[in-house]
Amino acid sequence: MKLNIAVLPGDGIGPEVTKQAKKVLEAVAHQFNHTFIFKEALVGAVAIDKTGEPFPQETMDLCLKTDAVLFGAIGDPKYDNDPSAKVRPEQGLLKMRKDLGLFTNIRPVKAFEQLLDKSPLKKEIIKGADLTIYRELTGGIYFGEKKISKDGKTASDLGEYSAYEIERIAHAAFKAAQVRRKKLTLVDKANVLESSRLWRKVVTEIAKEYKDVELHYLFVDNAAMQMILNPTQFDVILTDNLFGDIISDEASVIGGSIGLLASASIGEKHAVFEPIHGSYPQATGKGIANPIASILSAAMLLEHFGLNEEAAVIHKAVDKSLELKISTPDILPDSKITTSKVGDFIADYI
Amino acid sequence: MKLNIAVLPGDGIGPEVTKQAKKVLEAVAHQFNHTFIFKEALVGAVAIDKTGEPFPQETMDLCLKTDAVLFGAIGDPKYDNDPSAKVRPEQGLLKMRKDLGLFTNIRPVKAFEQLLDKSPLKKEIIKGADLTIYRELTGGIYFGEKKISKDGKTASDLGEYSAYEIERIAHAAFKAAQVRRKKLTLVDKANVLESSRLWRKVVTEIAKEYKDVELHYLFVDNAAMQMILNPTQFDVILTDNLFGDIISDEASVIGGSIGLLASASIGEKHAVFEPIHGSYPQATGKGIANPIASILSAAMLLEHFGLNEEAAVIHKAVDKSLELKISTPDILPDSKITTSKVGDFIADYI
Ligand SMILES: CC(C)[C@H](C(=O)O)[C@@H](O)C(=O)O
Ligand SMILES: CC(C)[C@H](C(=O)O)[C@@H](O)C(=O)O
Repeated sequence: MKLNIAVLPGDGIGPEVTKQAKKVLEAVAHQFNHTFIFKEALVGAVAIDKTGEPFPQETMDLCLKTDAVLFGAIGDPKYDNDPSAKVRPEQGLLKMRKDLGLFTNIRPVKAFEQLLDKSPLKKEIIKGADLTIYRELTGGIYFGEKKISKDGKTASDLGEYSAYEIERIAHAAFKAAQVRRKKLTLVDKANVLESSRLWRKVVTEIAKEYKDVELHYLFVDNAAMQMILNPTQFDVILTDNLFGDIISDEASVIGGSIGLLASASIGEKHAVFEPIHGSYPQATGKGIANPIASILSAAMLLEHFGLNEEAAVIHKAVDKSLELKISTPDILPDSKITTSKVGDFIADYI
Repeated sequence: MKLNIAVLPGDGIGPEVTKQAKKVLEAVAHQFNHTFIFKEALVGAVAIDKTGEPFPQETMDLCLKTDAVLFGAIGDPKYDNDPSAKVRPEQGLLKMRKDLGLFTNIRPVKAFEQLLDKSPLKKEIIKGADLTIYRELTGGIYFGEKKISKDGKTASDLGEYSAYEIERIAHAAFKAAQVRRKKLTLVDKANVLESSRLWRKVVTEIAKEYKDVELHYLFVDNAAMQMILNPTQFDVILTDNLFGDIISDEASVIGGSIGLLASASIGEKHAVFEPIHGSYPQATGKGIANPIASILSAAMLLEHFGLNEEAAVIHKAVDKSLELKISTPDILPDSKITTSKVGDFIADYI
């Protein structure tokens, strides 16, 4: 198979980890006789520095004409505490998601057998946990109208959803549940929010088409608690953009490190694969960033194109690296093994 | 001291637990020679059933003329999955908070020494955790304009904050930090939300008046993760209504049971004290509900009126009950000890 892949390393540890994912994809291409053609483009704070824009047109053009995007991370502390900054790296990420129509964000969370001890949660709580979060990614309060009054004393964000936006991701989530453990939990705040009540109504209606899937409802506050009390109760979680952001970062503690969590963002025509960790600026350039989240995102990329065998090989190599403790310090506290050493091991194993 | 206390038991386990808190307050009154006069009123689903309103005028009138309110819980599953219900029990709670001007919600979270084993988190993670969440309670997306389009296909909620709303709770939170470990963490989503950027701006400005307090910023997704990875890093957390709802329920896992967490909701003129657990309908009437959250809310009530010695006695009695394992099944899995037995023990100990 021939695939054109846009690589958007972005900020912070983005470039380091993406490099390893690319390395691994190249190993897969070599091993399985595929042709993967990589082209790089700018996004985030580095893009602002060089072009003034967090998601330049050139980057957009590249994304539009490639088959898939491998994304690193964006974000730079110099923008975080400057509420008046007009251009922010995050806008690049959000613009990409919106303009490429990536409405379904899939975030699988698993307790790795080799890492049960690494989690802040007790072993018996996380053992067997295996859930996938379907987070809506192009709607809700992230993209609703933002206002700041002239005197700067009142600010607002509109959280809006249409039935259509809910339907399309709901179908994706129900289909995923059908080939998993057939349980779908809708996480919302329907006791307070009108938009959540629309979610409940639409999802309840769609559930009728998926009679083999059990539908559960959970308020987001309770979900944040249940995720820790009893994560094995979850199979597929369906939720909106904001709640999905919070719940999926929280769920990362199950795996023992956010450095292990991959994600896929899928639209009708385009697909982006990115680790859920951010740019982690404190770690930049130190060789301590865990490349596994990015590498597993590359595996999700392969699965997206039906290359399941290839993806399985990556998973096997990742498992092996964990088993042999070829790991960065987030997993092995005093480890001297660098980001690129982990990448090398996984690529070589393939 | 003479105190007029309105008791609003509400729904589900609300009545059972509130009864124990009242019992304990009566023991305190007796022991310390105070006069506490209790008057009951309706709120929540029971209020809807009897009057058609979740927060009837009569209840409001009572709250207005008493010194403090002891609140149980509201919520009934028959409303949760009915997105079209016009009247909902939650509206009673929200109306009370709004009409009484209870803008500061204080939720202390502590790892009880006797219960370190009960948490799903590892002992070494939670040991020493002692944090307090200051949640804004009368603004934000809870109270912004809600819309549903005529065809029912689009729904929205407006998340709005004014500088004034942020300032008044920020001052309360900074003052709390001054008499604690002098660290305040603002939790927001300033990389996406305009209202969060206003929070950051206003709080950063106010911090200049509290030079002895260290101000930290944390995005809510990261906060949801940090709360589990390393809860001892937190002292006072300041956040908005929605994020406070999620983070405080999540933080309840530190204590080992949500049945232990009290809260105070304070305004300029009024104050309401309530457990953070909800109505927990599945447990209603079974005698398994933990009354400690409600009892500790009563202790917060006493502290609010400067009765610190009295509050300390309640804390001591609660500690004793935990030490002697006079506990409900949420804490002691096979316990046959009922809600009212726990209340009796604590009241008698006083
Ligand atoms: C960087 C930020 C805008 C982004 C989000 O909130 O979506 C990130 O936290 C994520 O989850 O991908
Ligand atoms: C019942 C519900 C409306 C309420 C809230 O969301 O504020 C509850 O969860 C709480 O935290 O007190």
